[in-house]
Amino acid sequence: MPKRSKHKTLIRKRGRKVGQPPGTLVHVGEQHNENTALMLVNYNQDLYSEQTLQQVSDLDRNAYPEQVLWCQVQGVHDATVVQSLGEKFQLHPLVMEDILNTDQRPKLEIHEHYLYIVVKTIEFDPDANEARIEQISLVLGDGFLISFQEGSNELFQGVRNRLSSGRRLRALRADYLAYALIDTLVDNYFVLLEKFGDNVELLEEELLNNPNPATLAKIHHYKREMLLLRKVVWPLREVLVSLSRDESELVSRDTQVFVRDVYDHTIHIMDSIDTIRDLLAGMLDLYISSVSNHMNEIMKVLTIFASIFMPLTFIAGVYGMNFQHMPELSMRWGYPIAMGAMITIGVSLAVYFRWKKWL
Amino acid sequence: MPKRSKHKTLIRKRGRKVGQPPGTLVHVGEQHNENTALMLVNYNQDLYSEQTLQQVSDLDRNAYPEQVLWCQVQGVHDATVVQSLGEKFQLHPLVMEDILNTDQRPKLEIHEHYLYIVVKTIEFDPDANEARIEQISLVLGDGFLISFQEGSNELFQGVRNRLSSGRRLRALRADYLAYALIDTLVDNYFVLLEKFGDNVELLEEELLNNPNPATLAKIHHYKREMLLLRKVVWPLREVLVSLSRDESELVSRDTQVFVRDVYDHTIHIMDSIDTIRDLLAGMLDLYISSVSNHMNEIMKVLTIFASIFMPLTFIAGVYGMNFQHMPELSMRWGYPIAMGAMITIGVSLAVYFRWKKWL
Amino acid sequence: MPKRSKHKTLIRKRGRKVGQPPGTLVHVGEQHNENTALMLVNYNQDLYSEQTLQQVSDLDRNAYPEQVLWCQVQGVHDATVVQSLGEKFQLHPLVMEDILNTDQRPKLEIHEHYLYIVVKTIEFDPDANEARIEQISLVLGDGFLISFQEGSNELFQGVRNRLSSGRRLRALRADYLAYALIDTLVDNYFVLLEKFGDNVELLEEELLNNPNPATLAKIHHYKREMLLLRKVVWPLREVLVSLSRDESELVSRDTQVFVRDVYDHTIHIMDSIDTIRDLLAGMLDLYISSVSNHMNEIMKVLTIFASIFMPLTFIAGVYGMNFQHMPELSMRWGYPIAMGAMITIGVSLAVYFRWKKWL
Amino acid sequence: MPKRSKHKTLIRKRGRKVGQPPGTLVHVGEQHNENTALMLVNYNQDLYSEQTLQQVSDLDRNAYPEQVLWCQVQGVHDATVVQSLGEKFQLHPLVMEDILNTDQRPKLEIHEHYLYIVVKTIEFDPDANEARIEQISLVLGDGFLISFQEGSNELFQGVRNRLSSGRRLRALRADYLAYALIDTLVDNYFVLLEKFGDNVELLEEELLNNPNPATLAKIHHYKREMLLLRKVVWPLREVLVSLSRDESELVSRDTQVFVRDVYDHTIHIMDSIDTIRDLLAGMLDLYISSVSNHMNEIMKVLTIFASIFMPLTFIAGVYGMNFQHMPELSMRWGYPIAMGAMITIGVSLAVYFRWKKWL
Amino acid sequence: MPKRSKHKTLIRKRGRKVGQPPGTLVHVGEQHNENTALMLVNYNQDLYSEQTLQQVSDLDRNAYPEQVLWCQVQGVHDATVVQSLGEKFQLHPLVMEDILNTDQRPKLEIHEHYLYIVVKTIEFDPDANEARIEQISLVLGDGFLISFQEGSNELFQGVRNRLSSGRRLRALRADYLAYALIDTLVDNYFVLLEKFGDNVELLEEELLNNPNPATLAKIHHYKREMLLLRKVVWPLREVLVSLSRDESELVSRDTQVFVRDVYDHTIHIMDSIDTIRDLLAGMLDLYISSVSNHMNEIMKVLTIFASIFMPLTFIAGVYGMNFQHMPELSMRWGYPIAMGAMITIGVSLAVYFRWKKWL
Repeated sequence: MPKRSKHKTLIRKRGRKVGQPPGTLVHVGEQHNENTALMLVNYNQDLYSEQTLQQVSDLDRNAYPEQVLWCQVQGVHDATVVQSLGEKFQLHPLVMEDILNTDQRPKLEIHEHYLYIVVKTIEFDPDANEARIEQISLVLGDGFLISFQEGSNELFQGVRNRLSSGRRLRALRADYLAYALIDTLVDNYFVLLEKFGDNVELLEEELLNNPNPATLAKIHHYKREMLLLRKVVWPLREVLVSLSRDESELVSRDTQVFVRDVYDHTIHIMDSIDTIRDLLAGMLDLYISSVSNHMNEIMKVLTIFASIFMPLTFIAGVYGMNFQHMPELSMRWGYPIAMGAMITIGVSLAVYFRWKKWL
Repeated sequence: MPKRSKHKTLIRKRGRKVGQPPGTLVHVGEQHNENTALMLVNYNQDLYSEQTLQQVSDLDRNAYPEQVLWCQVQGVHDATVVQSLGEKFQLHPLVMEDILNTDQRPKLEIHEHYLYIVVKTIEFDPDANEARIEQISLVLGDGFLISFQEGSNELFQGVRNRLSSGRRLRALRADYLAYALIDTLVDNYFVLLEKFGDNVELLEEELLNNPNPATLAKIHHYKREMLLLRKVVWPLREVLVSLSRDESELVSRDTQVFVRDVYDHTIHIMDSIDTIRDLLAGMLDLYISSVSNHMNEIMKVLTIFASIFMPLTFIAGVYGMNFQHMPELSMRWGYPIAMGAMITIGVSLAVYFRWKKWL
Repeated sequence: MPKRSKHKTLIRKRGRKVGQPPGTLVHVGEQHNENTALMLVNYNQDLYSEQTLQQVSDLDRNAYPEQVLWCQVQGVHDATVVQSLGEKFQLHPLVMEDILNTDQRPKLEIHEHYLYIVVKTIEFDPDANEARIEQISLVLGDGFLISFQEGSNELFQGVRNRLSSGRRLRALRADYLAYALIDTLVDNYFVLLEKFGDNVELLEEELLNNPNPATLAKIHHYKREMLLLRKVVWPLREVLVSLSRDESELVSRDTQVFVRDVYDHTIHIMDSIDTIRDLLAGMLDLYISSVSNHMNEIMKVLTIFASIFMPLTFIAGVYGMNFQHMPELSMRWGYPIAMGAMITIGVSLAVYFRWKKWL
Repeated sequence: MPKRSKHKTLIRKRGRKVGQPPGTLVHVGEQHNENTALMLVNYNQDLYSEQTLQQVSDLDRNAYPEQVLWCQVQGVHDATVVQSLGEKFQLHPLVMEDILNTDQRPKLEIHEHYLYIVVKTIEFDPDANEARIEQISLVLGDGFLISFQEGSNELFQGVRNRLSSGRRLRALRADYLAYALIDTLVDNYFVLLEKFGDNVELLEEELLNNPNPATLAKIHHYKREMLLLRKVVWPLREVLVSLSRDESELVSRDTQVFVRDVYDHTIHIMDSIDTIRDLLAGMLDLYISSVSNHMNEIMKVLTIFASIFMPLTFIAGVYGMNFQHMPELSMRWGYPIAMGAMITIGVSLAVYFRWKKWL
Repeated sequence: MPKRSKHKTLIRKRGRKVGQPPGTLVHVGEQHNENTALMLVNYNQDLYSEQTLQQVSDLDRNAYPEQVLWCQVQGVHDATVVQSLGEKFQLHPLVMEDILNTDQRPKLEIHEHYLYIVVKTIEFDPDANEARIEQISLVLGDGFLISFQEGSNELFQGVRNRLSSGRRLRALRADYLAYALIDTLVDNYFVLLEKFGDNVELLEEELLNNPNPATLAKIHHYKREMLLLRKVVWPLREVLVSLSRDESELVSRDTQVFVRDVYDHTIHIMDSIDTIRDLLAGMLDLYISSVSNHMNEIMKVLTIFASIFMPLTFIAGVYGMNFQHMPELSMRWGYPIAMGAMITIGVSLAVYFRWKKWL
């Protein structure tokens, strides 16, 4: 069975949080990076620039008029960074609290001047044969997008490349950028599902050819993974529905067409997760049945051996008795006759079991 | 068990797609044909004509005024064909992307000047005893219908025949043509379900008369097939509801009556799929129980043999002991008495098991 | 197990239908009668008359002003009869097609001048211990009701009697007649459910007293029957809801009160079906458990015999060895001591098993 | 297992009813009383009076102006009593039919001048360890309430006492009286659920300490009872919701507050029923597992005995062979060595099974 | 298995209540304190004061103008305290009844001048390894909040500290205070879920490494606990939704933002409960399968021993027969040949079982 990784607990610890007043900024989750990096991308149709800031205070929000500003925070364990950035963009204290708490459900909160979106990346860890989940918080405002995540932002390299390579993408507003990031995430879910789908089909073959206790543990493992994925993808649907119907001016009609496309993808993913779950449930039934079948096979062997040899051993035992008056013992053909009888009985029983289809 | 065909994976590969910007035209799915054929049917009440185009550029969209134009694309693996056709009819880039991706859920997208409909054909493959699914994309506009599919369009030969044979069908608009294609598909689902229904009822008989591990594998196989069918038919319902309520002028009121009729058929099909699923679930229970019953039978045989012969063998063993002072051994009637006792014990036990209904 | 009747397939054949253009009139289903009979009932408060027509063309629709006209078609396998009648009453081609196809789900279609209602009769066949389902199509118009069915219309004799016996019933319009027919059908469902309910409770008693493999097959049989009934009754609910809310002038307010009453009955029937299904599910669990219990009993017997006699047989075997130097063999009390030891061991083991509650 | 009482069939007989025209007054259900009693309570703030009428014709509906009139009919098997009372209060024929049919689902029917309410009392029968259900029909009109039931009206003695003891209760209208009766019924459901809850928890303890086949039958029995209760309580919810939102003038706003309180209670009861059902489902799983565990124990004992004694018996058998040339037999230490070998093998196997945790 | 605590019955006793008129004030539940304490907190932006009152009559409701008044009642078993307080604040009799009945579902009742909220605290009892549930009733009015609970109000010490430490919290109204209490409760649910989550994951490891009957009892125990938690948290969702949408002036818009945040938390908690339940269901399947696997192992050992030694013992028995004419017995190499045959047979069978993967 794949070893349970340390990183995967179904219920995340948020103990430090409890007892604190609402709005207290405390990081909840694992720390992946030592430092917090703040990467800035600003662009419009004519220019594209990337830079890494040392401190939040270096960021001048008004320095990029007529441009889209994309702040990427890597490492949300440092509450002060989130707080100073949050204050710069006038985020609600509860939003800052949620950014720090990486154990949120995907959700969309509509605030007056911005949207707060929580989504999850899922990465496949081939060693543990399981999914790794990380939270990404997006704050989408007028002309800016802030993305917060604990790990590295490698996943979005493709988006940055497309932006920098100067295509019509740069003419679009921050809402399209938000869409592009979510689209990237969801595309990645497909990769993951393919991995799981392949593994589950391999498992199915193993189940049909050579079921063993490890098969069972693997079925359990994948059921658990699917549970986890479902928990991540299910609420994302609502997020995308709300986003595609948002009537604030932050999401344009054109972008909403695209959001509906991602929405279709998540529906598709939910479908596939449910299909895999149904398949796993069927495989469990199959496993249990095949164990029963196997048991039947074993019992048949036992029963055949016992049923054939017990009568024979008994007969041998009878003629092994030491009574003085046993006329058969002194008969000339006693031994061959006894042996013949035994062979007859044995063969009859074998024929009987053959007729019963046990042999 | 029917061999798992290579073509049937629950989660389709779309790996090439991931990481590409939205709207990238990449074919996702299997390639069935070497070439892409473009077949053109144009008709009105007075004329009917079929032709095969070599290139998309040969198609002059405005050459068929007052006629219905039906473009049939066979083989969607060639992105350039889809793209140039799409541009000719001003399709949205995401629609073109979806046409190429043959792993879509059935859906209806309402665009300004056209409807985009994704449906699936299902064909029964008797060798693998399973359903083959293929995607058909329909673009229904004012005066034209474009159908995209990877495989051959044999299925629609009946529709073409009816069109050419000059009946009142040709007086109707492109929306009726779209309906006729979908109706053909759905009628085909019935054929498939009958096949599966028959096979499942045969399987039920096998289960009641001669359950064996292959029965179990077949139950699993059909459950899996039903899962797949359900995944195809379920979203079709929504497509047809939307279509029958569409308020654009692309679908006429008369056609909507017909669409509601197909809708009724899909409901019927869903019902039948669920009935078969329930039946298969019941058969699985039956199988597991019959395995247990069988085991009971085996155990009874074993227990009867062991219980009768063990005491007898023990007695024979006792009189096979070599003690010098065993008075029974030298008794004149020792041997017959011992044999009598053994027979009595054996018969008593047999009677006891008979009384317990084990014999 | 009750033998599976030939008439009962979950998925009806409609193969002849596939590939035909929509609106093609082809009978789908079994043929019960050789001939098609057309029985005519016309009445108003003052008169009541019954007649049997030889041909549809004999029917003059306008000959019964101010009367309710009830045409009863027995035997719908003859497409021409349905077609000529349909044309006389100006039915939509799809309606005629549905009348001929006796594998419809119960449904209500609201057309401009009439309502088309599909319902099902269920009859209990005591030989096969199962339900027989037949389709009845009703066309309710202004002043007329047409009922189509394949079998005989014996079931409605009660309604005809009540009509002819001159009560206030004849003052009511055709909608009340339609209600009266449906009410008769639904009342019949109760009779059926009582039969099944009784049989299931008998089965429950059998299960508690003497579970055997036939019990299992019966549970499966009744589950299957309930599946079938559910499929028939469930959509009837929607039919009745629509009928009781119909805003056309074809169903009067007074009749709607009665329709709501039948609606209550169908809810009740659905409840009962679900109760029986839950009960059967519970009985299956009980059966499986009782099989396991039985197995435990068998295993205990085996284990007790084996555990007691194996050690004893071993001891007897030891003293049956032919070593020249076995001092016990020549001891005066060797044999009684050995026998005593064996008896002690046997009794001790029996006491042990008694203490373990295995005896 | 508690004996199945004769009174408890899941599907009530209504055979006599079938085939009758709608509105025929026929009693459906069991008859508990020989006679039908008609008890009359009339009150207002100033007076309270109870009387028992001999005949329905003795009742003068208009003799109690400005008072609340409560007619209690005990014994609904006499259709004439219901009919004459129904005619006196101008009830719809279908309502009279439903009053006589004691196999109704709980429901609320809103008629022009009155409300018709069907509810159920549930009583715990400690002998059969099961619930007894009886139907109570309430007709609530302007200034009067009629309650119909087959059994005695002991249950409402508390309500009569409160009315007679002259509290502010008498100032309230008939709708409050109806509420008070329903409240009494629902309070009684709690008593019942406590009984079942206690019994189920006792059963759970029995299951953990000493599971036996009777435990299983009891689990099945309680599941069945819960099924029945659910069937009674579930539709009551809808009744109370409708009642609390009724916009006729028959139910005052003040009373609606109270009705909502009873509604909360029924929700609570549904919750508890579902909890008990979940618990019973869990107990069934536990039972099945414990049977399997037990089987494992038995099999271990058998396997240990067989595995230890079979090799030893074989060795003894070898030295019991009568070959003339068996050098071991004449060795001085043959016997002790053989015995030592046997003991070594036996002990090794015991140690092996101990290591495998089977001992 | 964790011992069932006396405090945990799924269906609480409310027997004393039944038969009483609605609005009767009787305590339902356990009594934890001997005395009833009434603690008073009053504050505004400038002051904060705590006091403990001896009697309800000492409380002058109008003595705290422009302040928030928080009355904390500890010990609701004394009906007179609740009644006099309820009358002072003009609560509806049914509200007072509900406060005394500590077996309510969480709910929100909107009254004219106040809101009545029922919530539950859950505490983890590490000895019994289970959750303890206590009811807290909140009455939120204009300028005051009354909290009723049976146990001590330690849980709210944090809220009192934050209030007294003079932060901006004191500027907020009573609705924020109510929110703060509910938030504290819900935060506590997380602590509990973490405990259960940890324990369930430990159990999962135990299940994979060393399944035993105690594992099964623990799975059952946790399923039961989850059932209980679900029952508490599920209705809380509705309470919070209603609260966040309340249109009375008792809950301000600002507070509603916070309430929605708690709502998100309860959704998260429900998710986690369902995840744990799914996990436990999977673990049960795993347990049952592992028992079957174990049984298979045992059976294999038995079958191997029996199948190898039975033929050998039979052969030894044959040559232990006492026939006078058995030529093999006097052969010079008879014994070694017989032994060789036996070894050959034994080894062949062992090889056969190895090939069958049973060894």
